Amino acid sequence: MYSSTRVAICGAGPSALSQLHAFESARKSGLQIPEIVCFEKQNDLGGQWNYTWRTGFDEYSEPVHSSMYKNLWTNLPKECSEFVDYSFDKHFGQPITSFPPRTVFSDYIRGYAEQNNVRQYIQFNIVVQWISYSEDKKKFNVLVKDLRKDETRSEEFDYVIVATGHFSMPNIPYFNGIETFLGRILHSHDFRSAQDFADKHVLLIGNGFSAEDIALQLYKYGAKSVTLSYRTKPKGFKWPNEVKEVPLLVKIDKETVYFKDDSSQDVHAIIFCTGYLHYFPFLDNNLRLKSTNCLYPPGLYKSMIWLNQPRLIYLGMQMQAFSFNVGNIQAWYARDVILGKITLPSTKDKMQFDMKLWQVKEEAVQNFPDKANFLKEYILDLIDATDYPRFDIDGMIKILLECLKSRFENLITYREKTYASTLTDTTAIQHHTPWLREMDDRLENFIRK
Amino acid sequence: MYSSTRVAICGAGPSALSQLHAFESARKSGLQIPEIVCFEKQNDLGGQWNYTWRTGFDEYSEPVHSSMYKNLWTNLPKECSEFVDYSFDKHFGQPITSFPPRTVFSDYIRGYAEQNNVRQYIQFNIVVQWISYSEDKKKFNVLVKDLRKDETRSEEFDYVIVATGHFSMPNIPYFNGIETFLGRILHSHDFRSAQDFADKHVLLIGNGFSAEDIALQLYKYGAKSVTLSYRTKPKGFKWPNEVKEVPLLVKIDKETVYFKDDSSQDVHAIIFCTGYLHYFPFLDNNLRLKSTNCLYPPGLYKSMIWLNQPRLIYLGMQMQAFSFNVGNIQAWYARDVILGKITLPSTKDKMQFDMKLWQVKEEAVQNFPDKANFLKEYILDLIDATDYPRFDIDGMIKILLECLKSRFENLITYREKTYASTLTDTTAIQHHTPWLREMDDRLENFIRK
Repeated sequence: MYSSTRVAICGAGPSALSQLHAFESARKSGLQIPEIVCFEKQNDLGGQWNYTWRTGFDEYSEPVHSSMYKNLWTNLPKECSEFVDYSFDKHFGQPITSFPPRTVFSDYIRGYAEQNNVRQYIQFNIVVQWISYSEDKKKFNVLVKDLRKDETRSEEFDYVIVATGHFSMPNIPYFNGIETFLGRILHSHDFRSAQDFADKHVLLIGNGFSAEDIALQLYKYGAKSVTLSYRTKPKGFKWPNEVKEVPLLVKIDKETVYFKDDSSQDVHAIIFCTGYLHYFPFLDNNLRLKSTNCLYPPGLYKSMIWLNQPRLIYLGMQMQAFSFNVGNIQAWYARDVILGKITLPSTKDKMQFDMKLWQVKEEAVQNFPDKANFLKEYILDLIDATDYPRFDIDGMIKILLECLKSRFENLITYREKTYASTLTDTTAIQHHTPWLREMDDRLENFIRK
Repeated sequence: MYSSTRVAICGAGPSALSQLHAFESARKSGLQIPEIVCFEKQNDLGGQWNYTWRTGFDEYSEPVHSSMYKNLWTNLPKECSEFVDYSFDKHFGQPITSFPPRTVFSDYIRGYAEQNNVRQYIQFNIVVQWISYSEDKKKFNVLVKDLRKDETRSEEFDYVIVATGHFSMPNIPYFNGIETFLGRILHSHDFRSAQDFADKHVLLIGNGFSAEDIALQLYKYGAKSVTLSYRTKPKGFKWPNEVKEVPLLVKIDKETVYFKDDSSQDVHAIIFCTGYLHYFPFLDNNLRLKSTNCLYPPGLYKSMIWLNQPRLIYLGMQMQAFSFNVGNIQAWYARDVILGKITLPSTKDKMQFDMKLWQVKEEAVQNFPDKANFLKEYILDLIDATDYPRFDIDGMIKILLECLKSRFENLITYREKTYASTLTDTTAIQHHTPWLREMDDRLENFIRK
């Protein structure tokens, strides 16, 4: 049933689950598939969605993967991120709110994995430590560590698929005088509980998605003031009175922070909302993607196939929107490349030519609608090559842009809006309690029994 | 001047600095020494004493090494930890207090390194990623990463000396319900600023040295209450009114922590003072020490030479007291083994026999004086084999035990005591301000200009 080809998948988050699903669905349809081994360092699947109270290092001294906080709710309607082949309706058997909390969303991801019967391929508590490619053997040497046994072993593979995400390793720039700061310093990666900042004055460095949502969390849970320091320009939201935006931080002196406009303030805590680094400490030089958070990472044909060694495939490395479906479509494409159903261009030059076209497109992107259209083009390009089901990408883009507009109008209430699924037409229900007053994020508070 | 033998040293903390000093002093005396390459992932020497405001990961996404906090003062008299060949008098040219703060102590360590001219051997911002031993080549393969260039490379070595310490990787056990805790959770490794806990109720898990000292820090900087939860038995110190000891934590529910004696309390923060793990993620299975914090780690002949591959040497892996001199003496011993001046027992059995004797001795250790005597015996055993200068180990033990007694009598004032150097007979001066009221830890506040 399995061919002699061996494929290693690193990570068991959403992209990897899609990859397993892609292979499993081929197997179920009667095709011979390679031997698949998925290595996951955590003790369960879900990747980023595996919430943990831990920060820094886990119980096996591995870097904590998840950047999830206790009271996270999605900031985009679930209707934008629905797996095309697994609707929320199917999972919950009832309509739910458009902006579910973490607990609800991760239940859905788990359901996706279980219905696709992919757990069989995953080895948990196994971390990939080092991957190199042997030109002699034409194989990848994959060194993994069994965390429970505290033992390493090597295996050979024909293909490697890296699906370890890129929202895990904090980017923490230095600011003048930060070593004198008397309060707490953390990165959004280590943010867990907003309650912990009640009655505090908090500085957030950055004003991207992390900063915006953490600012709202802090406001909701009673911070005395929240200041967002932006590098380029303010978001211009109608913030609550307790929240404001200021220019870039230039200096810190004990409890006081100073900004580019010569204003200053005393704060109890500084939270770096300065994004994440593409981090692949387990990959040899010639295999390692070095990228910022962008739409078309360098060195990757179709944003996923490593130009210099096309048997190495990266999933989900671009900036994200519709990320589950992008991951799914990439997984389908990767599978078909490995199964030989898709033939890659015969030369590096030809691949580079294609990559160049996309890079030019990316350079032309100026705003959010541009980004969404870029992703649409990208999705259509990949879908054309596979049997992945077509879906209403325009409908999803419409929902995304509507949400961004409604968020701009009112940050506090935008999560009360409801959207209709592009898959099932079901309109989401409004949650019984507005986001600002809802302190009970448990699954059972959102799903009728 | 250098032989063709190559020695890799991992880390540039105090033990590694001793090792470099040992080789450099041999070289200066006209001996031919091997080629020495010391790899340090930080951008400076000092290891643990390299204070950083960062927690979790550093600017190169490497685990932050130092567990040092901003306002740490030594908790043992400096007269116990003086390098025999570099007195505090020599470094500062004036008598100083017996319990210097971090800034003063790390200045001394830096001076030790500079006077011994060891910086020439150290490659900074280079992290050791993987070490394996090739039986064919009779060499270690050492994979290192240049953090600034983000590039890896491999080198071959005849000897490897691991001096990366064992107070870096936090041990964080699970407690029932901890995922519901609403406040801040951290390990002492990530504790930086006591000011940050002013007016807070804080739970410390553990009552060892970390817990004791952090409790005092929190008290000094205005915590509302500090509760130490012990596993075995209370320390029995005369704590200030704001500090108390309770039995083991059994359960956490939101803000409330419950103890074994059915008492409970609401706290704002939980600090794990639960110690550190021996952590060598860069060593292949058959080379990796697995040990708890003990006096004689398993698998190490003379507590330092890896039984199964005696060309691998660990420095400073035992529980510490007089640690700089222990490191120094081990370094001398290691050097003489590598230079062929010390011949190891001819068989594994003979080494194991010796190890067994020490393990039996360790089993008999019951209290602190026993530990000190164990270390004395160990020091004398190693010193006998080398030309390391003899020193007044009994004098150092006496100071150590006196300090422990005085600490037991009064935790708040024990750092006002002064001791005389066993090397120079100089008696320390009393600092102008008692520890409890001294908020200025800068070097210049402790050293007369």
